[in-house]
Amino acid sequence: MMASRPGSATRHDLAALDERDPLRLYRERFELPEGVIYLDGNSLGPLPKGVEARLREVVQTQWGHDLIMGWNLHDWVNMPRRVGAKIARLIGAQSDEVIAADSTSVNLFKLLVGALGLRPGRRVIVSDSDNFPTDLYMVQGVNELLGGYELRFVQRDRLPGAIDEQVAVVLLTHVDYRSGARYDMRTITSLAHRSGALTLWDLAHSAGALALELNACGADLAVGCGYKYLNGGPGAPAFLFVARRLQAHLRPVLSGWFGHAAPFDFSPDYTPATDIRRMLCGTPPILGLAALDAALDAFADVELKQIQDKSVMLTQRFIDLVEAHCRGFGLQLATPREPAERGSQVSFTHSEGYAVVQALIARGVIGDFRAPNIVRFGFAPLYLRHQDVGDAAMHLYDVLAARAWDTPQFKNRGVVT
Amino acid sequence: MMASRPGSATRHDLAALDERDPLRLYRERFELPEGVIYLDGNSLGPLPKGVEARLREVVQTQWGHDLIMGWNLHDWVNMPRRVGAKIARLIGAQSDEVIAADSTSVNLFKLLVGALGLRPGRRVIVSDSDNFPTDLYMVQGVNELLGGYELRFVQRDRLPGAIDEQVAVVLLTHVDYRSGARYDMRTITSLAHRSGALTLWDLAHSAGALALELNACGADLAVGCGYKYLNGGPGAPAFLFVARRLQAHLRPVLSGWFGHAAPFDFSPDYTPATDIRRMLCGTPPILGLAALDAALDAFADVELKQIQDKSVMLTQRFIDLVEAHCRGFGLQLATPREPAERGSQVSFTHSEGYAVVQALIARGVIGDFRAPNIVRFGFAPLYLRHQDVGDAAMHLYDVLAARAWDTPQFKNRGVVT
Repeated sequence: MMASRPGSATRHDLAALDERDPLRLYRERFELPEGVIYLDGNSLGPLPKGVEARLREVVQTQWGHDLIMGWNLHDWVNMPRRVGAKIARLIGAQSDEVIAADSTSVNLFKLLVGALGLRPGRRVIVSDSDNFPTDLYMVQGVNELLGGYELRFVQRDRLPGAIDEQVAVVLLTHVDYRSGARYDMRTITSLAHRSGALTLWDLAHSAGALALELNACGADLAVGCGYKYLNGGPGAPAFLFVARRLQAHLRPVLSGWFGHAAPFDFSPDYTPATDIRRMLCGTPPILGLAALDAALDAFADVELKQIQDKSVMLTQRFIDLVEAHCRGFGLQLATPREPAERGSQVSFTHSEGYAVVQALIARGVIGDFRAPNIVRFGFAPLYLRHQDVGDAAMHLYDVLAARAWDTPQFKNRGVVT
Repeated sequence: MMASRPGSATRHDLAALDERDPLRLYRERFELPEGVIYLDGNSLGPLPKGVEARLREVVQTQWGHDLIMGWNLHDWVNMPRRVGAKIARLIGAQSDEVIAADSTSVNLFKLLVGALGLRPGRRVIVSDSDNFPTDLYMVQGVNELLGGYELRFVQRDRLPGAIDEQVAVVLLTHVDYRSGARYDMRTITSLAHRSGALTLWDLAHSAGALALELNACGADLAVGCGYKYLNGGPGAPAFLFVARRLQAHLRPVLSGWFGHAAPFDFSPDYTPATDIRRMLCGTPPILGLAALDAALDAFADVELKQIQDKSVMLTQRFIDLVEAHCRGFGLQLATPREPAERGSQVSFTHSEGYAVVQALIARGVIGDFRAPNIVRFGFAPLYLRHQDVGDAAMHLYDVLAARAWDTPQFKNRGVVT
């Protein structure tokens, strides 16, 4: 088949799908700019409608009027747990197994060091050599500090073979930020457990877009990001998960006062809380937590299965349309074809990927680029329509067919996040 | 002299002082609730007027409209440095020596571990046994992790004697959160340096209320809080200071991607930035930074000497009025009488301190209580009037003279922060 523009028949089919979409009303929960098809919710989720009002309330009333009494009157102290409980529902965890805190990187540090403490004598940390850089950096920092670990960073296909009885922790990002490839959490966790290792999952590219089942998979530890599919805003607080069975044993290395069993006793000796709160460190960021809390309300009443089903439909349709219509333009699918093996994301390689993404952005189709040559599109089931998929494919066709990317304007590089 | 109500003569004198106050117009930069005398800016600063509009702009436009492009269009990436530069001016540091990041506790961890790395072979960490708990907890966590350190936590008067050639780091909070006693930064730093130790100052109760001179004192490292006298809002991002001479040598233990020399190259190997940015870890919290950034504008054009002078006047007047009028009510001054030896805070002990504070709060005079018996009042020079000092002393007299604190309503304890 030759390259050809996706046509009106497709548009009609997609409109019909939108009408039957059980999540069709969720889009109304977001402030989406006119004329934008936002396929970058895996970098920074869009603004949920409730956030502004909530921030205004917290700033004007809770802080401005109630001042220091805000801590009691509005129970700010327990906000990390309340927000954590909302996230727990989205990742297949119990409400007391998740807490919102710090950044993903800092949480990785806490859980990685904690996990190593649970496996004394084991000196290997396994990860994927294509893992998101900060995950690898944090491991390197821990090894620099504690010394003597083997960092076994291997490629995806070598991973099962890398897990043996010397391994303390297997640290993986569930969905790869470039390719969108997804690890089978259940299988890897079983493998790790069979060797006596712990698993530490980074859910940055999964939470909020897939039907995660941490407990059903037997997961031990996890971290995740508040500003991608959870839509908490730029640099939103992150979260962490500790399976209930491990909570009392995991030593908090960042032993700050909010992780203390009785923070307001001001005792000079550190005694960790017995529950997930021990993983808190400093004073929680109330403004950021309030925004994330309000953002999570966009998930109210959603069923994980609806998210998962729509994710598969959106990504599959996009793959199908692009592959059917954009042949010969140098795109190569980088995401697994098998739905169970990918996240809510579709990536292609293209030698001029950066410029292609810029040309799309100029037309209001916002995806992103990841070096060296990945064109990446995130499909957030909550606010994207099936029609958006068709329109995005059409724009992609137009950009490629007309070589619209081939101008200096789109080829100059800036910062990409 | 007997106890007696502060009179109208005092009020008149204080009104005259307010008229001559070079900072009198700064109060207008804050949203202060009617009828409140806010003496708890050392727990949570009040809301500066510019914060709401800034947050609205960041949420609506920068995030809501510009979405992922916000990182470039609004230079979010460099916000930690921009905010840090504003704080630098308030603490006697160069603009490239301060960065806003994480929480005070997390920053303590980074700098403490970094400092220990600069003094290999030295196995003693000195601190004040009355230091704010989280500071001591973080030290305990570091020792638990790395092992083999002597934690030499001593009382204030024994501190000079505790600094010897085995000491790696002297970690002190500049102004004590309970007593308000201030360490002489210059003397302690000299003492530490003479022994070859590094100093790590916690400026939580100093920054924004005193004329700090970190570089003039030869300070090495410092952390501080964004939500006290800097008024950045509950749980605002904290900051850290690294003297320029140490920046390239201090190893970042929390080696996250924002501390990388080139974060957006997505290299798998961690190479720290050569400057203060290496002390960043995860993605910076843009909403919290925006609020803090706007809050710091309340300090625009202020001279540190004006802050310092007014701090001394406010605290001295409060001590004088309370001691002159509230005799025999069981109050005992806990703060040093010598202005150079105290922060912008006055504390008294009282056996029913908790109830006294509650009774004051019921009258709109907001101070706070710290166990076991400290009644604490913070005097923020930017928004307090000399008249507020007189009125607060009058209310304190009224509460004590009428034993207004002596009711169950005020004696039941809740959470205090």
